[in-house]
Amino acid sequence: MPLRLDARARGFSDAFSRLLAMKREVSEDVDQAVAAIIADVVARGDQAVIDFTRRFDGLELTAQSLRVDEAEIDAAVRACAPGVLDALREAKARIEAYHLRQRPEDALYTDALGVTLGWRWTAVEAVGLYVPGGTASYPSSVLMNAVPAKVAGVPRVVMVVPAPRGELNPLVLAAARLAGVDEVYRIGGAQAVAALAYGTQTIVPVAKIVGPGNAYVAAAKRRVFGQVGIDMIAGPSEVLILADASANPQWLAADLLAQAEHDTAAEAILITDSAELADAVEVAVERRLATLPRADIARASWRDFGAVILVPSLAEAVPLVDRLAPEHLEIEAEGAEGLAAGIRNAGAIFLGAYTPEAIGDYVGGPNHVLPTARSARFSSGLGVLDFMKRTSILKCGPESLRALGPAAIALAEAEGLAAHAGSVGIRLNL
Amino acid sequence: MPLRLDARARGFSDAFSRLLAMKREVSEDVDQAVAAIIADVVARGDQAVIDFTRRFDGLELTAQSLRVDEAEIDAAVRACAPGVLDALREAKARIEAYHLRQRPEDALYTDALGVTLGWRWTAVEAVGLYVPGGTASYPSSVLMNAVPAKVAGVPRVVMVVPAPRGELNPLVLAAARLAGVDEVYRIGGAQAVAALAYGTQTIVPVAKIVGPGNAYVAAAKRRVFGQVGIDMIAGPSEVLILADASANPQWLAADLLAQAEHDTAAEAILITDSAELADAVEVAVERRLATLPRADIARASWRDFGAVILVPSLAEAVPLVDRLAPEHLEIEAEGAEGLAAGIRNAGAIFLGAYTPEAIGDYVGGPNHVLPTARSARFSSGLGVLDFMKRTSILKCGPESLRALGPAAIALAEAEGLAAHAGSVGIRLNL
Repeated sequence: MPLRLDARARGFSDAFSRLLAMKREVSEDVDQAVAAIIADVVARGDQAVIDFTRRFDGLELTAQSLRVDEAEIDAAVRACAPGVLDALREAKARIEAYHLRQRPEDALYTDALGVTLGWRWTAVEAVGLYVPGGTASYPSSVLMNAVPAKVAGVPRVVMVVPAPRGELNPLVLAAARLAGVDEVYRIGGAQAVAALAYGTQTIVPVAKIVGPGNAYVAAAKRRVFGQVGIDMIAGPSEVLILADASANPQWLAADLLAQAEHDTAAEAILITDSAELADAVEVAVERRLATLPRADIARASWRDFGAVILVPSLAEAVPLVDRLAPEHLEIEAEGAEGLAAGIRNAGAIFLGAYTPEAIGDYVGGPNHVLPTARSARFSSGLGVLDFMKRTSILKCGPESLRALGPAAIALAEAEGLAAHAGSVGIRLNL
Repeated sequence: MPLRLDARARGFSDAFSRLLAMKREVSEDVDQAVAAIIADVVARGDQAVIDFTRRFDGLELTAQSLRVDEAEIDAAVRACAPGVLDALREAKARIEAYHLRQRPEDALYTDALGVTLGWRWTAVEAVGLYVPGGTASYPSSVLMNAVPAKVAGVPRVVMVVPAPRGELNPLVLAAARLAGVDEVYRIGGAQAVAALAYGTQTIVPVAKIVGPGNAYVAAAKRRVFGQVGIDMIAGPSEVLILADASANPQWLAADLLAQAEHDTAAEAILITDSAELADAVEVAVERRLATLPRADIARASWRDFGAVILVPSLAEAVPLVDRLAPEHLEIEAEGAEGLAAGIRNAGAIFLGAYTPEAIGDYVGGPNHVLPTARSARFSSGLGVLDFMKRTSILKCGPESLRALGPAAIALAEAEGLAAHAGSVGIRLNL
């Protein structure tokens, strides 16, 4: 049974704080192992990558076979079911259309003093995309990471994906082709992250690495940060559903379980002002669990991290939502737009009864890479801006420097930086 | 003498690679000490902060005196020279005007299928601003960090600044007042970072921490990342000057030294197509060094990390600039705008002879918190977006879900996520 809380009950505040503080991840201490792998790839390049791939993936590679060539990708595309390829194409088109609207504007203007200033956005020169192997090798994630990079104008997008015993998911290769990925290497783990960050004889290094991975990949990304940029470190997925008595309990149960089936550490929470709905959803979850292929995972997640919270009114739920800062927020209630407008912290909001979160995982258009573990308090989902950077621009002339100079000199002197003051003063004969 | 390279000389490529790889920072291993400080603040709150402040800052505080009260800030403002206060006001107004243009737009639109989608930007709910104590306590940095936060709409900006033996820089407090900082605490080090991230009895926790600090502060920021957001970890400052024979060697020498005076680990590089200019700048640097108050620092920086690189033409310098990815790039040459347009990687560009980098440190308007250590390849200077986050919005109706549903179901099934498919199918009676 999931946790059941009532906002009107004594002790609710403490119980809710415990829910917020609940740790869902066991962080494996792999940092020393990862440091050694990275050092070896830096020292020995391709050969280290080949050795680790033999050891961890049971796959014998050469410098020539590290890269997945175009003929192999062609064959993979031919191996995919046409219906699924069509669905991938539809998803790609919608993700691209949404992200095209995120492209930022440059600015350049001259102010009243005659100073010209502004900024210019440029794409990161090369991006590495980590794609997990095995069961978590999701073609949808390839699209969600690679499409915004290409919309940003990244000239070189490099994908790495481990091929345990040589196996690659054809849909992952098809998604890479569709998204315009420029190079694909059949490697994974910390060794792939190191190869992307530092380069090898075969792999030219990138400037930023994105994409999800296991504890080794996450630790490697943290370690190479600085040498390259990285995206967020994603935790287990979460959904929070805000619903009133008008919601369909069967549909809500389906949505809670769609989250719970991801991972035993996934979190699915329902907040409602209807005790009847709460009861009906719990019953529906149990019934649907019986029919799910991934029932064991979903049941563990719902039992250990599921929660149903009863509130006097949905308006009173808003501060609770902001504290939970969910990755995914579904609002299935009268006045959903009004409630959404009052919420500060959520990665993505799904409005109304006909927007199950899963539609956003695939074909809605917005990105499905979203902040987890309450980090929506301070961060955003993946987007075009993650693949660009801004350069500020400033230009003074003799007159505008004369206008601004005295204040700069006063502040530089107040900070004890005489050479700063001097670099302005010398141009004004001061 | 600084390093002298000639792009036409044999061995240039290797020498330039060594310059790129040069480590300017000795990273002190303070991580264990910092972990213990954070754990103690989490466990004991105010009392731990008070104990560490006594030990590290030689200052005896109580829970009541942690916070710098309004009367004390009033008194600090009165203690500042009126001319410097005016300069701070001018700087604040220009920084604010520039950053107001960075406020992002929300989007909400309905596409051809009838899906409503877009995004909404919201401000981070509370931000902590770390300000170093002692000689590196810069009022300009208070403005550069706090003004964008307030422009973003952050309702609560909290500043921490250590007060060694009780001393605070009145200009720092005046800048905080001017920028609209809401709370100021006289604490620093890892204990201040921990107090901001986890809260104490007196200090309500924040959601993001920004601002520069020493090795302890940097290590603490890395450790609390996840609990809160953090900005970049800033390294020693850098300038790269691209100049042709039209540039004034005295002015360039002044600019190189303005960078070098920051820190013995600062880096100042000149790239030019004129051997005469290169020689004249080196002579001018030596002459100016004799007159500088911070000559010892500047001389060490110029000797250990300075470089003068001769190129056949400035156009050929562009790929070198992109590899160096300088924090600050000055272009003092014919056709500066054209050269700037071809450069991908730079934190900030200063165009023309009348735009010394120091003008941007104080009153230009753009932010002076910029990516160092080649991180301009993948990151931007501080701005309004660093204090906001984006929530994506998606709304389908019965018809648009019917249009999108089959593709979502096909992809979910291809990924083995039956409950995802089911949450869509149940709404379509599939």
